[in-house]
Amino acid sequence: MYYYKEELINIIKPDQPDPAAAKVLQETLGGQFGEMRTMMQYFFQSSNFRGKDKKYRDLLRGVFLEEIAHVELVQSTINALLDESGGQGVGNVAQDQAPLDDAVLHANPHHFIAAAQSSLPVDAGGNPWNGSWVYNHGNLIADLLNNVVLESTGVLEKTRIYEMSSNQSLRETLGFLIVRDNAHQNAFAKALETLGVDWAKTFPVPNYDINKYPECKKFVDMGYHNTQFNFRLDETKIADIFSGQTPSRNGGELTVTPPPAGFPVPELPEIANEHSPGLKDLNH
Amino acid sequence: MYYYKEELINIIKPDQPDPAAAKVLQETLGGQFGEMRTMMQYFFQSSNFRGKDKKYRDLLRGVFLEEIAHVELVQSTINALLDESGGQGVGNVAQDQAPLDDAVLHANPHHFIAAAQSSLPVDAGGNPWNGSWVYNHGNLIADLLNNVVLESTGVLEKTRIYEMSSNQSLRETLGFLIVRDNAHQNAFAKALETLGVDWAKTFPVPNYDINKYPECKKFVDMGYHNTQFNFRLDETKIADIFSGQTPSRNGGELTVTPPPAGFPVPELPEIANEHSPGLKDLNH
Amino acid sequence: MYYYKEELINIIKPDQPDPAAAKVLQETLGGQFGEMRTMMQYFFQSSNFRGKDKKYRDLLRGVFLEEIAHVELVQSTINALLDESGGQGVGNVAQDQAPLDDAVLHANPHHFIAAAQSSLPVDAGGNPWNGSWVYNHGNLIADLLNNVVLESTGVLEKTRIYEMSSNQSLRETLGFLIVRDNAHQNAFAKALETLGVDWAKTFPVPNYDINKYPECKKFVDMGYHNTQFNFRLDETKIADIFSGQTPSRNGGELTVTPPPAGFPVPELPEIANEHSPGLKDLNH
Amino acid sequence: MYYYKEELINIIKPDQPDPAAAKVLQETLGGQFGEMRTMMQYFFQSSNFRGKDKKYRDLLRGVFLEEIAHVELVQSTINALLDESGGQGVGNVAQDQAPLDDAVLHANPHHFIAAAQSSLPVDAGGNPWNGSWVYNHGNLIADLLNNVVLESTGVLEKTRIYEMSSNQSLRETLGFLIVRDNAHQNAFAKALETLGVDWAKTFPVPNYDINKYPECKKFVDMGYHNTQFNFRLDETKIADIFSGQTPSRNGGELTVTPPPAGFPVPELPEIANEHSPGLKDLNH
Amino acid sequence: MYYYKEELINIIKPDQPDPAAAKVLQETLGGQFGEMRTMMQYFFQSSNFRGKDKKYRDLLRGVFLEEIAHVELVQSTINALLDESGGQGVGNVAQDQAPLDDAVLHANPHHFIAAAQSSLPVDAGGNPWNGSWVYNHGNLIADLLNNVVLESTGVLEKTRIYEMSSNQSLRETLGFLIVRDNAHQNAFAKALETLGVDWAKTFPVPNYDINKYPECKKFVDMGYHNTQFNFRLDETKIADIFSGQTPSRNGGELTVTPPPAGFPVPELPEIANEHSPGLKDLNH
Amino acid sequence: MYYYKEELINIIKPDQPDPAAAKVLQETLGGQFGEMRTMMQYFFQSSNFRGKDKKYRDLLRGVFLEEIAHVELVQSTINALLDESGGQGVGNVAQDQAPLDDAVLHANPHHFIAAAQSSLPVDAGGNPWNGSWVYNHGNLIADLLNNVVLESTGVLEKTRIYEMSSNQSLRETLGFLIVRDNAHQNAFAKALETLGVDWAKTFPVPNYDINKYPECKKFVDMGYHNTQFNFRLDETKIADIFSGQTPSRNGGELTVTPPPAGFPVPELPEIANEHSPGLKDLNH
Repeated sequence: MYYYKEELINIIKPDQPDPAAAKVLQETLGGQFGEMRTMMQYFFQSSNFRGKDKKYRDLLRGVFLEEIAHVELVQSTINALLDESGGQGVGNVAQDQAPLDDAVLHANPHHFIAAAQSSLPVDAGGNPWNGSWVYNHGNLIADLLNNVVLESTGVLEKTRIYEMSSNQSLRETLGFLIVRDNAHQNAFAKALETLGVDWAKTFPVPNYDINKYPECKKFVDMGYHNTQFNFRLDETKIADIFSGQTPSRNGGELTVTPPPAGFPVPELPEIANEHSPGLKDLNH
Repeated sequence: MYYYKEELINIIKPDQPDPAAAKVLQETLGGQFGEMRTMMQYFFQSSNFRGKDKKYRDLLRGVFLEEIAHVELVQSTINALLDESGGQGVGNVAQDQAPLDDAVLHANPHHFIAAAQSSLPVDAGGNPWNGSWVYNHGNLIADLLNNVVLESTGVLEKTRIYEMSSNQSLRETLGFLIVRDNAHQNAFAKALETLGVDWAKTFPVPNYDINKYPECKKFVDMGYHNTQFNFRLDETKIADIFSGQTPSRNGGELTVTPPPAGFPVPELPEIANEHSPGLKDLNH
Repeated sequence: MYYYKEELINIIKPDQPDPAAAKVLQETLGGQFGEMRTMMQYFFQSSNFRGKDKKYRDLLRGVFLEEIAHVELVQSTINALLDESGGQGVGNVAQDQAPLDDAVLHANPHHFIAAAQSSLPVDAGGNPWNGSWVYNHGNLIADLLNNVVLESTGVLEKTRIYEMSSNQSLRETLGFLIVRDNAHQNAFAKALETLGVDWAKTFPVPNYDINKYPECKKFVDMGYHNTQFNFRLDETKIADIFSGQTPSRNGGELTVTPPPAGFPVPELPEIANEHSPGLKDLNH
Repeated sequence: MYYYKEELINIIKPDQPDPAAAKVLQETLGGQFGEMRTMMQYFFQSSNFRGKDKKYRDLLRGVFLEEIAHVELVQSTINALLDESGGQGVGNVAQDQAPLDDAVLHANPHHFIAAAQSSLPVDAGGNPWNGSWVYNHGNLIADLLNNVVLESTGVLEKTRIYEMSSNQSLRETLGFLIVRDNAHQNAFAKALETLGVDWAKTFPVPNYDINKYPECKKFVDMGYHNTQFNFRLDETKIADIFSGQTPSRNGGELTVTPPPAGFPVPELPEIANEHSPGLKDLNH
Repeated sequence: MYYYKEELINIIKPDQPDPAAAKVLQETLGGQFGEMRTMMQYFFQSSNFRGKDKKYRDLLRGVFLEEIAHVELVQSTINALLDESGGQGVGNVAQDQAPLDDAVLHANPHHFIAAAQSSLPVDAGGNPWNGSWVYNHGNLIADLLNNVVLESTGVLEKTRIYEMSSNQSLRETLGFLIVRDNAHQNAFAKALETLGVDWAKTFPVPNYDINKYPECKKFVDMGYHNTQFNFRLDETKIADIFSGQTPSRNGGELTVTPPPAGFPVPELPEIANEHSPGLKDLNH
Repeated sequence: MYYYKEELINIIKPDQPDPAAAKVLQETLGGQFGEMRTMMQYFFQSSNFRGKDKKYRDLLRGVFLEEIAHVELVQSTINALLDESGGQGVGNVAQDQAPLDDAVLHANPHHFIAAAQSSLPVDAGGNPWNGSWVYNHGNLIADLLNNVVLESTGVLEKTRIYEMSSNQSLRETLGFLIVRDNAHQNAFAKALETLGVDWAKTFPVPNYDINKYPECKKFVDMGYHNTQFNFRLDETKIADIFSGQTPSRNGGELTVTPPPAGFPVPELPEIANEHSPGLKDLNH
């Protein structure tokens, strides 16, 4: 069973609203290699795990637990990029005004029509999240290799989205997630090491200089690329895998630690033109 | 952030494997009105909540937390229905034998080809789970009404799936979930009461005699239809809504309680013809 | 605007329930070349028509109007094949009974789980109807050629579905629709004749002997393959196209006539295990 | 069977072409809560209706009939927004010109590539209409509750799309449809009243001031929010439900009336760069 | 079996990068009437061909073989439109810069996030290519009629996309493909002539003046609209169909010839912000 | 450009028709890890390749060329499983007969309704092939890792499908493809070795005893698991990668060879109840 404390895993750094940035950041939430995919893939892999060697199951479950918090972090970042991005006129706008027009021209229109200026379970092209993306073939090596590809692609896409916008809300969240994707890449690469693979100098993929991303560097300095956060309220055997020398050429020791201190979950204001929720008129 | 204790929210009652039952039970996992939908819908509604009246957000989040455990319960039930449902012959089966044939003829073929005889994020027709099903329009009344329809449809479908198979693994899980869907129906109906609706004798939907389902009755006797389990490790205002007289014509007082005592998470054996995971030959 | 008289365009011939037949007949309702496609394709083509030569628009609209009645006819036929196809036990079935099992093993499971044993907007494989199938490119020749392919494929598929089941409800409906598809094939082929094509002995497609289908022959004897029913309450120029010699090698004169005398729309009984609708207990 | 008189249910108010507005208005035509959905949902619910209490079936059918006219109204409005929105150069445009470029940059590209500058069965994001959206579970209360959510969401989305553009063609059509959605909300809410629900001050949803929308106000003054148009050529029992006090806090008496006087169906000109239809060169 | 020589079937004419043009040109690659559709449709039709009259099978196969080269041509054209369309900054861009922003605002975001600024198997709206588009009903006349519609629609769409951009890379490729689509239209129309159809003055569809497209005219002057390229290394009976008078009103004799002299396949440079491939750092 | 010789890459071993086997074998043709996916993935990866190190591009292209022949092989095998699987009655079957019924009950109904008893671009569940499956992120390591996962999953699924049916047509084709998938696994694993990975004893995945599959063993004895067939008519640098010691623990030297001697492409008879093609009646 699953328990919750109302804290985000990283801060939502304030900046201006930017619906065009929100649109592309959706890839990190609802895209084929986004956080909803990692969350659901590791959920199915851990629930469907075969065999008695529970350290692998614990590893899959451990990463799954963090991914739920990642989904919430990206949802909240997209909300910050969309909130107050349109005008306030409700109905009585003048005939020659269309207050949302500028915002909407480069936005995902569903952010305004359906989602009340908040996040959606879709990708950057507006395609809804799809269950066929979950890979769980029940062969441990194939599943772990797919996880490595998934985490590598996650980093690759995030560095590209990072280039698309200088918005600080977007870059802070991507910086944190890039480092955590590296940690998870290490987790699955290390698990494959226990099964015989020698990765030599292959990882991390892509072969980029993480120090060029200032939003990443602070987390690397804190060792987050070599850390697995532990969200279990009972025993876990993650450290049977996640310990010792990192499989990455970046070096360092893998360690399991408690989760980071939490950050406040943002509160979104009511917006009149969303007609939300309008309790006042109903209750009185 | 999200924490976990390795316990199921209800027991997996043992019975024979039955791939045809597993196929239809997928609707309860990955269908348009299944547990993955409720889980993701309440996740988005709580993360995207607008306004300062946090008791509604806490209610949405509270039900979301339980739905994660429901997803795991249905995954495990489907696994029980599929495990050991095919023969063991690997490759060297005789020319005139096809050991999985009988099982597969009425099965979802992907249960055997892709999922290694375990659960998939698809519905009873094999259609993958789809993000467009998540309803989150940011108007509190519309969102709550949709949740009521979702929970009502959940019960409706589960009672029909219950009729399709007498398998005890399937019926025990459905019985538990029907009662919990009723509790969640009560939660959202009660929230609408605080906004002015008088449901009179409308609920529960459908209008069925729950006492005819023996697997439900034991949970009704325990009061589970009027209970909200609390998975929060910090404060929650759920009880500001979920208390007092039930909105259902079944009567009773609504109460917030700790989660039930947990049940063991099943362990699935390795199966040779899944080629999983085969650590032995690799490591030695 | 659209008006209605509660009459079916052909009779629902009674026979036994047969969920496996209902499943394949869904292709004729919600398939890529089924009646929902023809209805929506001609709706868009007539609403979006360009140019002043209104006889083409009237022809497209005229066929569209009949297709709405075809959709209702196939819905009602599928309902006849599904109704009373499962047992009546609600909840209190004995532990060792699963009354719907036999019916469901070869059925579309959504007919029982979602649709309360009635029709769905899906094809024979359970794939939902999809708007991308509508062809409307705004070039009159291309649109008409696509319509000819659509009606030809409609006949082709219906003759194959006819072979799959000897159920009389299914065959009567298919027999009627095959002849009407031929009439619509003639309508669009004739329209292309007015634009210069000489079809020679090409039509009808497929090149089959309609007299081998007894359910078709009675309608051919009534001239339905050369008739366009007129559902307009105002003027129409259909007869500017649909008159004179048929483009089909079957011969005969094309004529516009009033619709056939209507047939009763079936009434479906309540079924307890559908929990529908249960008015009694609520109102009293 | 279905009959037709070539009249639109409301006027197409002339304004400038605006492909970006056409793109977002597609949500009202082919979106998950658009007019194609309401049309097909009530079509299936009425054809598949169970039980002898025909007044509910007549209500569902009655709203279905109006929705066909709504689909045609939105198709025609989108056509008005797209027609003449691109230049006329066919092939021989100069090398440095791309006459459609400005129009297309913020348009749905399929409006120009496929649809010859007219409407498509897709939503604002370009996703095709999908049959899985049709809700018809055969439990009268669940079906009616879903219809209430559908109509409420329809209004919610239309008021948001209204904010996105000041184009008069778009706003006139949305204004009319918002009021009619309110009438249909009243219809289904009233039907639930006959089954026991007391809506108190819940409706309409959303809780907005309709008088702020001048395009709505004129229809409210005509009582269209409390009127059900009757498109039946035979008897109907709609008034057994749709009469007496409105369930809405806006007040007033519900009445069944004949349809409004019709408006002309627009004629679109041929456009050379659509190559449509080019009869001249072929026939002579 | 299939053999290859590294040559393009037409030249990639150099011009500026233009991601908005790349986005719409995707329709010609991965759209419902694009080159991937024609390639796969004729592949299935030739592999699944029934009957002994092999000249039809050879015709279908022959066009299929050319379509593989068309797919490669459009992939390479899209690559030319995307390559070097974004800046080079990797990570260390200044805080107030987002080097890809301008390019991406009107682009398909997946071209930058996923595809490393190269082609994707999607259409102009970003919808992935879909197998349901392949038409292969096994009735020769229906299949050939569908092919005629497919090739006609191909020309229609390409002339519209041509109007959307004056980019020379885009127009050169479209000009070549328009003429080849006409040749394939002739191939399938001629095959239908052998089965009895007299097309009179119907073709080509659309009825446009190809001489207005300078990029087409040079290929018409070379006779490419009446030529079938032969990619077979063994015997083929294409000329049993593709010979004699063209079915098009443009006139001329149909002839089977060797393929055109090939053009160089472009080489794309590595781009730092794609992190591709970075061999240097790994090997040393 | 692409050239063709009418020969299959392996024999179609004759056995009885078996529509249920055809249904599951569709996964190998149109499934997420089937031959259409490998064919299109390597096509896009080679066309979109970045950088000057052409040996990688040649490797990707080389495997792509063989995959086209694999697609044709699986199409032909499915055709063999479907051909003559239904009766011959056209229309005039007796009222109490439905000749296709037995075949269809466990078949993909579209094999009979749409495809005239031949192959379709869909998977074992009837889901159409989807372009979103193509992975081409333009980072060489990520692309190669994904290819390794794709080929490993291909073997895994094929060994499971092999278990589902003892039909010799199905098993012969799967046996050949399993060995070739191993060769392609070796190709991509070897390419990753050139970039620094040491696979140790990881491959092949899955970890199965290929000698238990008699249909595989004969190809292993011929060395096909260590061979790359060369379909280029010009130079290729494949051997710069594909040579030396295999990366698989099975051992052996990698070699590039000419393709195997070809096998006859089957000819399918006309079937009356497919109405195909019916040339006779038309021409005379």
